[in-house]
Amino acid sequence: MTSIVIFGAGMMGSALAMPLADNGHDVRLVGTHLDRDIIEGIQTDGVHRTLEIKMPGSVRPYQLEQAAEAFAGAEIVVSGVTSFATGWASEQLSQLLRPDHLVVMVAKGLAAADDGDLSILPDVLAHGLPEAIRTQVPVSAIVGPSIAGELAARRHTCVYFAGRSQAALDRLAATFRNSYYHVWTTTDLVGAEVCAALKNCYALATGFAEGLITKEGVADDYRWRNFNYEAALVSQGVVESRQLVRVMGGDPATAEGMPTAGDLYVTAKGGRNVRIGRLLGEGMAFDEAWESLGHITLEGAAAIKEIGGALPKLTERGVIEGGDFPLLRCLYDVIGQQRPLEIPWERFFGGQ
Amino acid sequence: MTSIVIFGAGMMGSALAMPLADNGHDVRLVGTHLDRDIIEGIQTDGVHRTLEIKMPGSVRPYQLEQAAEAFAGAEIVVSGVTSFATGWASEQLSQLLRPDHLVVMVAKGLAAADDGDLSILPDVLAHGLPEAIRTQVPVSAIVGPSIAGELAARRHTCVYFAGRSQAALDRLAATFRNSYYHVWTTTDLVGAEVCAALKNCYALATGFAEGLITKEGVADDYRWRNFNYEAALVSQGVVESRQLVRVMGGDPATAEGMPTAGDLYVTAKGGRNVRIGRLLGEGMAFDEAWESLGHITLEGAAAIKEIGGALPKLTERGVIEGGDFPLLRCLYDVIGQQRPLEIPWERFFGGQ
Repeated sequence: MTSIVIFGAGMMGSALAMPLADNGHDVRLVGTHLDRDIIEGIQTDGVHRTLEIKMPGSVRPYQLEQAAEAFAGAEIVVSGVTSFATGWASEQLSQLLRPDHLVVMVAKGLAAADDGDLSILPDVLAHGLPEAIRTQVPVSAIVGPSIAGELAARRHTCVYFAGRSQAALDRLAATFRNSYYHVWTTTDLVGAEVCAALKNCYALATGFAEGLITKEGVADDYRWRNFNYEAALVSQGVVESRQLVRVMGGDPATAEGMPTAGDLYVTAKGGRNVRIGRLLGEGMAFDEAWESLGHITLEGAAAIKEIGGALPKLTERGVIEGGDFPLLRCLYDVIGQQRPLEIPWERFFGGQ
Repeated sequence: MTSIVIFGAGMMGSALAMPLADNGHDVRLVGTHLDRDIIEGIQTDGVHRTLEIKMPGSVRPYQLEQAAEAFAGAEIVVSGVTSFATGWASEQLSQLLRPDHLVVMVAKGLAAADDGDLSILPDVLAHGLPEAIRTQVPVSAIVGPSIAGELAARRHTCVYFAGRSQAALDRLAATFRNSYYHVWTTTDLVGAEVCAALKNCYALATGFAEGLITKEGVADDYRWRNFNYEAALVSQGVVESRQLVRVMGGDPATAEGMPTAGDLYVTAKGGRNVRIGRLLGEGMAFDEAWESLGHITLEGAAAIKEIGGALPKLTERGVIEGGDFPLLRCLYDVIGQQRPLEIPWERFFGGQ
């Protein structure tokens, strides 16, 4: 039995409690200040309010101010904090981590420096930790096609655990792996994280297809769907993901299958990023579309702004070519620059 | 203006008449003996009975016995004949082709020899032609995420034209390409055709996911969907496609994006192969499921039997390893051997 803290009680972090609890581990679920109602709900009747599922009885809920108590004796820390709060998570964990902890995180994104250089979030998280912790605690990540609600319902789910320490990955994998949660490991943390961040961008783009059909007002008939369009964007998304893996020094082979095609497949099945993609396809400007959705958190749109905004700088510095990443540049034009949607088809796949 | 014969008036062949007619070419659509009603329908009111769409007025319909008339003066021949009739198409075309023709085909599949060796369909088609034709007429193929009905409705569609003659590909691409039909070319005909054949196999497998949920009888709730399962099969499908490309001497780089991830994405959106996959997921044996669908033509199931049946022979000969292609072998067990569905998760992605 291993003691594990899940820090952040959002859907993905909380869903990871299922395989851990089913494997007989001691799981402590710590809510952030945004998760207060979720933790109270579990304390009241065991039901997770956003997953809408009863948590295993062995999972112990804690509010943020009880975090130190939850961390006492824990060996593994799962960071379930959203990508937007990576800096905050770093600050909090600086007080809570010990040098013998293992950390694995679920947030997805890349952070751009002023000169356009991109960093993966495990490195951003580690950067904010005290040196004594940073040099001792390997920060790994979970990557792959994994809808939280399905994992919480114990549906078969395949993922990669990615990190720089194979020993840490082996221990993490042995802790989480069971009959429905299938875990592989890769030491190409950069490659895996680049794919994971980009899949939110390209999944958003697949939403355009349905929005364009809605705008035309044609009947909902198989002939008037737009799956060829979606599939073309998915295809170009896979190609660009592989290319950014290479640019960032990862192994392009990592971009095969699960981290690209698989994760894009599942992310395009729905969710907030696809919803805003539909509104953009209908012809709304991004700010208007975002307002109509009540300014909800959009990891895909944020990643497009962050990564897309870095591309001109990387081009200027000669790190990439002007013709590279035509779809991501198009997404940045639409979402970062409020320009009308215009897909540069002829520039896809290396150019016609 | 180029004169083009489309030989076979099925949905995909006929849909290709749209970009050709829109580009101002002279298009002759020749039905096989199975397309008699379709050709009569077009002759009567211009409507294609299975596409349920009005054909461009410039497309001239011909019954099979008028084929010689249709071929007179044609420069390009599109074979729209189904994979099951490749030998028949070869016999017919032996009488109709001239050495200065270009041929491009849409049928997808691989043919297995007794020793397990696999051939791509353009080679099977060419093999049946007289030598004087075979050595002069390049047979190319169209590969990529392309639902016929959407192309017929002039929706954006991206494809590869694959063949061994770059000159032929350039001429074909220039003839078909327009504002909604986006064409790239590749001389890796083997690689492209392997991916195209396999995508029908793996798309069938994605149907299992919904069938398993139906069998459980749980509510249709996001938590009870099975998209993680589908995405895992898609991921493994991409990995196995790339591997078979390599085994067959194609370029693994061809298996990136459009021919695998893109084509699987669109094929998994529906159709006959996914329908029978659902029945198998519900627990039916293959023969029972196929009977319940009235023994309809199933390209995916046929490809699983043909290619999956060759795998043990290729293993015995040392061409592949016993641990290779775990998903395709599983599909063969279910569809070729009537065994219960059991996904060998732990053997995916090179083994856990």
